[in-house]
Amino acid sequence: MKLMNAKGMRDFPPEEKILRNKIVSKLVEVFEIYGFVPLETPIVERFDVLAAKFAAGETSDVMKEIFKLKDQGDRDLGLRFDLTVPFARFVGMNPNIKMPFKRYQIGEVFRDGPIKLGRYREFWQCDVDVVGSENMMSDAEIIKLSLDVFKILDMDAYLEVNNRKLLQGLLIDCGVDKSMMEKVIIIIDKLNKIEKVGVKNELKELGLDEKIINNIIDIFNIKGNDYEIFEILEKKASCDLAIEGLGELKKLFSYIDGEKIILNLSLARGFSYYTGTLFEGYLRDSSIKSSICGGGRFDNLIGMYLGNDKKYPAIGISFGLDVISEAMKLKGFGKKKSVSKVYIVPIGYEKECFDIVEQIRDSGINADIDIMGRSISKNMKYADAMGIPYVVLVGEEEMKLEKVKLRDMKSGKEELVSVDEVVEKLK
Amino acid sequence: MKLMNAKGMRDFPPEEKILRNKIVSKLVEVFEIYGFVPLETPIVERFDVLAAKFAAGETSDVMKEIFKLKDQGDRDLGLRFDLTVPFARFVGMNPNIKMPFKRYQIGEVFRDGPIKLGRYREFWQCDVDVVGSENMMSDAEIIKLSLDVFKILDMDAYLEVNNRKLLQGLLIDCGVDKSMMEKVIIIIDKLNKIEKVGVKNELKELGLDEKIINNIIDIFNIKGNDYEIFEILEKKASCDLAIEGLGELKKLFSYIDGEKIILNLSLARGFSYYTGTLFEGYLRDSSIKSSICGGGRFDNLIGMYLGNDKKYPAIGISFGLDVISEAMKLKGFGKKKSVSKVYIVPIGYEKECFDIVEQIRDSGINADIDIMGRSISKNMKYADAMGIPYVVLVGEEEMKLEKVKLRDMKSGKEELVSVDEVVEKLK
Repeated sequence: MKLMNAKGMRDFPPEEKILRNKIVSKLVEVFEIYGFVPLETPIVERFDVLAAKFAAGETSDVMKEIFKLKDQGDRDLGLRFDLTVPFARFVGMNPNIKMPFKRYQIGEVFRDGPIKLGRYREFWQCDVDVVGSENMMSDAEIIKLSLDVFKILDMDAYLEVNNRKLLQGLLIDCGVDKSMMEKVIIIIDKLNKIEKVGVKNELKELGLDEKIINNIIDIFNIKGNDYEIFEILEKKASCDLAIEGLGELKKLFSYIDGEKIILNLSLARGFSYYTGTLFEGYLRDSSIKSSICGGGRFDNLIGMYLGNDKKYPAIGISFGLDVISEAMKLKGFGKKKSVSKVYIVPIGYEKECFDIVEQIRDSGINADIDIMGRSISKNMKYADAMGIPYVVLVGEEEMKLEKVKLRDMKSGKEELVSVDEVVEKLK
Repeated sequence: MKLMNAKGMRDFPPEEKILRNKIVSKLVEVFEIYGFVPLETPIVERFDVLAAKFAAGETSDVMKEIFKLKDQGDRDLGLRFDLTVPFARFVGMNPNIKMPFKRYQIGEVFRDGPIKLGRYREFWQCDVDVVGSENMMSDAEIIKLSLDVFKILDMDAYLEVNNRKLLQGLLIDCGVDKSMMEKVIIIIDKLNKIEKVGVKNELKELGLDEKIINNIIDIFNIKGNDYEIFEILEKKASCDLAIEGLGELKKLFSYIDGEKIILNLSLARGFSYYTGTLFEGYLRDSSIKSSICGGGRFDNLIGMYLGNDKKYPAIGISFGLDVISEAMKLKGFGKKKSVSKVYIVPIGYEKECFDIVEQIRDSGINADIDIMGRSISKNMKYADAMGIPYVVLVGEEEMKLEKVKLRDMKSGKEELVSVDEVVEKLK
């Protein structure tokens, strides 16, 4: 046996897992404040269930990256590569579910792809989706939820927002042919990275007319606040798709008081299955450049996936636990090796110390106790290395006085106090 | 595509996942109160890492039940079948970790075995282990932790406790040959199920002398409270192993005020890798007969697994999320379809309703809002079906009065109140 992790897989030691647990519990708090309920689906799915998404038109390389396996009955299985496919399967298998169905799911997904810095083969997704409502109120709810996630995690972040119908409609108005749409959108999506000159060049290489290219660039030259931009677009938009998309976007913005949302007409999130509202969240200080969350409306995906004639309008967002965790680490989190507030050191008197630690724990305080029978100095070193802020020493002298010695590990100050006073102080 | 789960895999719809989340958060609360820190290891491990446990002497069928897979680089991988192997691997890969290392881990494990009622191929384990201490104080801590888990989950449960050294030592004293030990222990482990007559018969079939059998049965005829039994065993125990085991058990019991722990001299938990203290938890009302938790001391496993000459004394317990969840369902839990306390119904005035729901949410109350633009009666039916206890109606009349209509869904009582009063009431 080689004592190592499988390629692309990692352990999260306590200091990292404590941070990740904290982030997840904050996410869950916000998700539930918004009335979303948890769903759990298995990690192992039938292979045909996983592969069906690609029949539904997904154009990425994800299909190749599914981890395949078989059970002893020779059935073809796979590890889930996202949480959207299991969600769609669940919705399909539960036709009597009440709409709108608002669920969140947090868990591991797997992709057998190349390993780069910050890319792993097993990682967590934290997804929030609503199925059953076409109303822009649901889009507004998802955006408000994201902004509250930023707030609860104390992240100075913002959301870029766009609408796929509007983008595609404006491109039609610019004269872009439908056959070129996918390639054009993928280029435009890179605007923030390669800037206008880059977009221009790539559109030229694609063989687009100079006039069409200038029309396109004109869109991204529009300046003003959101409402000024909406007014200009109102005059520009002429095809039905553009008009519909603009209407949706205006409605959405009317629901949100938005200094933390920014209209970005070039945002496309690739040429994937999104149909309407689109958004992507970023840190303002750009200490981390990748997006911390992203999502949008996918009104056709579930219906196409299930292959039935029902409508499943849906919108969702996915938060990246890895990137949020990295952002928190940059702010100094992720160093706590212990969850304990106090460490009890028995100098003899084990049974009495068990009673003392029990009293402290019963009051809801996380407390640890030496179970090695070590010397005082070794115990002090241990508590210090673990970053436990207080130590309680109990020896003969303390037992006689019916007190304990409480040591503040930071200041080194020690005082003789009752156990009640310890609880009082640590609460 | 067949719209179904893979064989042996299941979904947990919101009403079940809400319950499971609640159980897990209570478990975590107790684990951290006791100073255990979380660890996460990947679901996918190298196959050799998983298989090494069996080289270390595990005698079960689990090896055959490992789900095998390969990555695109043709590496042999497997899905973890327990949380002990990854724990041992982590300890081996982190030689500088501070001892004692007290970790908990909660997550899915996978076994490609036969499906029976209540047996699945993917299930959760909730494990708590300490490595690095031989001291009976750590055994006492694990037992106290289990009793606190029963308390926080309001389960009327108890722990059966035994010691492998004592059991094996007493059997040596009875005249059982070492070559027969494994088979004899497996029979004795069934005492509660097949009773003394069954044990006698099976030992006879095994070919044991009648005198040895009577010696064995004599052990289980000992009556009295724990301390009376210890006194009798004191006289009976003659080999070193029995004396050592008895000493450990007496020490352990001296640390615990135990009306919730019961000495069961026949408890063996199979002939597995346990070396000392053993325990298993059961519900008192036996509405569920299987154990809800179990574990023990495994001082040799990690060292044998790692194949090095260091000592890794360890003790741990595993809680079964499925069985605890079943027990809670029998008590009426697991029916909540919603986490929301209140449901806001806008009759027009969407933007104003967003402000109202925001105010309620900001005070920490889980609140949902209609995002379908449905009629009042449809919304009432929805809130009722979801079991949301309160509805807030906001229409023209309410807007004029700067109030909202708060409806108690149980009593049907409605009152005109301010949003502040809604928050007050629901807090």
